[in-house]
Amino acid sequence: MAASQQISKTIYLGPFVHSKSLQELEICKNGAIGVDENGKIAFVERDTTPLNVLEQQQGWKDAKIVRIQDNGFFFPGFIDTHIHASQYPNAGIFGKSTLLDWLNTYTFPLEGSLSDLPIARKVYNRVVSRTLSHGTTTASYYATVHVPATNLLADICLAKGQRALVGRVCMNQMSPEYYRDESIPEAVKASRECIAHCSSIDPTGSIIRPVITPRFAPSCSADCLRALGDLHQETSVYAQTHISENKPEIQLVKELFPESKHYTDVYDRAGLLTGKMILAHAVHLSQEERDLIKQRETKISHCPASNTALTSGCAPVRELLDQGITIGLGTDVSGGFSPSILEMARQAIWVSRYRAMTDGDQAKLSTEEVLYLATRGGAEVVGLEDKVGGFDVGKEWDAQMISLGEVDDEGAAAAGVESIDSVDVFGWESWENRVAKWVYGGDDRNTVAVWVKGRLVHKTERYSP
Amino acid sequence: MAASQQISKTIYLGPFVHSKSLQELEICKNGAIGVDENGKIAFVERDTTPLNVLEQQQGWKDAKIVRIQDNGFFFPGFIDTHIHASQYPNAGIFGKSTLLDWLNTYTFPLEGSLSDLPIARKVYNRVVSRTLSHGTTTASYYATVHVPATNLLADICLAKGQRALVGRVCMNQMSPEYYRDESIPEAVKASRECIAHCSSIDPTGSIIRPVITPRFAPSCSADCLRALGDLHQETSVYAQTHISENKPEIQLVKELFPESKHYTDVYDRAGLLTGKMILAHAVHLSQEERDLIKQRETKISHCPASNTALTSGCAPVRELLDQGITIGLGTDVSGGFSPSILEMARQAIWVSRYRAMTDGDQAKLSTEEVLYLATRGGAEVVGLEDKVGGFDVGKEWDAQMISLGEVDDEGAAAAGVESIDSVDVFGWESWENRVAKWVYGGDDRNTVAVWVKGRLVHKTERYSP
Repeated sequence: MAASQQISKTIYLGPFVHSKSLQELEICKNGAIGVDENGKIAFVERDTTPLNVLEQQQGWKDAKIVRIQDNGFFFPGFIDTHIHASQYPNAGIFGKSTLLDWLNTYTFPLEGSLSDLPIARKVYNRVVSRTLSHGTTTASYYATVHVPATNLLADICLAKGQRALVGRVCMNQMSPEYYRDESIPEAVKASRECIAHCSSIDPTGSIIRPVITPRFAPSCSADCLRALGDLHQETSVYAQTHISENKPEIQLVKELFPESKHYTDVYDRAGLLTGKMILAHAVHLSQEERDLIKQRETKISHCPASNTALTSGCAPVRELLDQGITIGLGTDVSGGFSPSILEMARQAIWVSRYRAMTDGDQAKLSTEEVLYLATRGGAEVVGLEDKVGGFDVGKEWDAQMISLGEVDDEGAAAAGVESIDSVDVFGWESWENRVAKWVYGGDDRNTVAVWVKGRLVHKTERYSP
Repeated sequence: MAASQQISKTIYLGPFVHSKSLQELEICKNGAIGVDENGKIAFVERDTTPLNVLEQQQGWKDAKIVRIQDNGFFFPGFIDTHIHASQYPNAGIFGKSTLLDWLNTYTFPLEGSLSDLPIARKVYNRVVSRTLSHGTTTASYYATVHVPATNLLADICLAKGQRALVGRVCMNQMSPEYYRDESIPEAVKASRECIAHCSSIDPTGSIIRPVITPRFAPSCSADCLRALGDLHQETSVYAQTHISENKPEIQLVKELFPESKHYTDVYDRAGLLTGKMILAHAVHLSQEERDLIKQRETKISHCPASNTALTSGCAPVRELLDQGITIGLGTDVSGGFSPSILEMARQAIWVSRYRAMTDGDQAKLSTEEVLYLATRGGAEVVGLEDKVGGFDVGKEWDAQMISLGEVDDEGAAAAGVESIDSVDVFGWESWENRVAKWVYGGDDRNTVAVWVKGRLVHKTERYSP
């Protein structure tokens, strides 16, 4: 519905919630946010009334009004900093595997099958619609090695209106014969083709951007990484890869790259360790590696669900944050079992609780902190912090309308329909506790509408503006 | 809808899935299960056709037929072996607290408010409907100290048709003045009143049973525990309490009960450590305590979500199972943030993964194992293993119909409605993988109908028999 949609000036009326800082959530009960024809936030009013807004804001008299319904609030769209679009059909399928056997058992066969465009269309249409329905307004996607299928993913994101970084996966070793780059020049050429396609369909990168995507060090020879590093430096296109996910993988990298000091150094030597590189996982980094990442301003995608499901480990997010490293959340579908960043916010809480069991209470993340990682943190990771992540004048309207149904006096579900909502608000909860109920009990049913750059890109039947 | 509903002989046709043993799930693709007018399973046919069933089963020609829809299967109802009905409004509200401060900050004020019957009605109607919608056909409930409100919970469970153990909470120390038993005789008298009420509304205990419920050792003096142990021995009524949840609590018990060898011994001295006692948590038991629990055939409720959220620890479920201790799953709402046993199955997997990170791969639970804990294991814990937990002739029909919508060729959601289902089946998945997708990605939307003892007690709008 997004591509053809005209935007009219709109005032979003009602409560809004967003991060002010890592530790502080702003809950504004009587808000009004004006969004112009370009999808940009023109004003943010707090503690106001509809009448006041129209009196004070010149030129907004005829603006469309969208009101909050069902005890809800506006919240910034979520940013998924690491998701394998091509693996979505395997979400939830992982058994007792760990990273390296999981790749061979589940992942490569599925990814390989996406050379078939009708399959790719089915998978990519589904994953983009599904993540939009969970409030993901920006996603940094891994596709596959296949150029046409990767370009199709970019087309689908643009058509459905989801902001995306679209990455064609590069790998020239340690993968099946049927699923790898034939040569380093081929890997670079194919990457250039995907970069060119993104530029052709969205020349200003307003919604779609390419991302250079070496799978991870074991899949790429040092020369291949170097060639992709050169491309990264030449084009200034963002890059993404994996790092330090589990211990056998780290050992493997040590064996494959004996000339490197450590895993992080492998990427650094290739010219890939920059402020425009997104590193997924970072579970077992040494202090020396963390220092180097901090120095290079390289970004980290924390993927708690995947790290737990594949028994990779518990990333020390508190320590990385304290060191000033920029972090966002990633679903890492399908190492991660869920396409929902709200679920990742919960999973980040659980991982921090497990760290706290051994490291002490200071390891705990708060609800405020994981919501920051899910929005502003993620925006910084993908280089969109000037455009999205919070409700600030000049940013673009990437937002979700959250509804929370209220139980009636006899204890009946919201609207009398049991399955309409997974959260029960009794009416006596504070605003902070309502937000907590959403974070720990909510799902896509609470996300009744989603906008990207001012365009409505998803709505449920419950949405009645 | 349950209480007044007549049951007619019914054949449930289509795939069914249930546990054969701890390690083995039976997936039967062409099943037929006959349920008689008393809600009992009369036959279970595998690899059959509707025509064959009618030919082979005498007297079932006019039986009602309920067919599986939407790629689904019948699955046994879930058993929640530990849930505080009275705390349901606080689900998701826990902040950074741990057990002892959580009790004072969040829990006692809410529980105290349920002396008000209209509030109790609102809360209990909601929690029973909500857990039914998640497929919980049996729940072992903690209510509050209040006799009328506890009896109301029993009435509501009976009216809505949920199998329940209903426990009036006893506590004569270390709780607020406004919320405790005035004396030991008062605690016993009030417990007797609740036992009598359950017997009066359901004399054979076919659906509702009472459960003697000392909150936990710190809330009860040794004499109070002894008096409740005497009542337990005298009446043979089941008992439930908490044990060894977190370390400060264990230290507190040590100080309060200096005459006891350990936490488990506190209950043993009181006559409460029997085969009819359900102990929730059991996170930090010593080997000596485990041996005693095994010897006494006392049951354990594993509450992974609560143990994680409150940073209590990771229960060593693999070790307890290997020792032959009987274990089920508990939501422990609201220490646990979710009323869903399916979510607990997932959380048990995560907890086992965290144990595996330090203890090695043998600590991992499998999908099959957590589904066993959620059904047959839970049935053993609450003493209903002869009636529920699996699809065996002679057991009662406590079941859920699971539906899994299928994505179309263009990648559109099942039935074209995004929010109807949280699981996407692409069509090429094996049966084992479909079950995995449900376990790791499913929720109450997939539970389209629920039966207890042959009675339909919940259905969604998606159910079309």
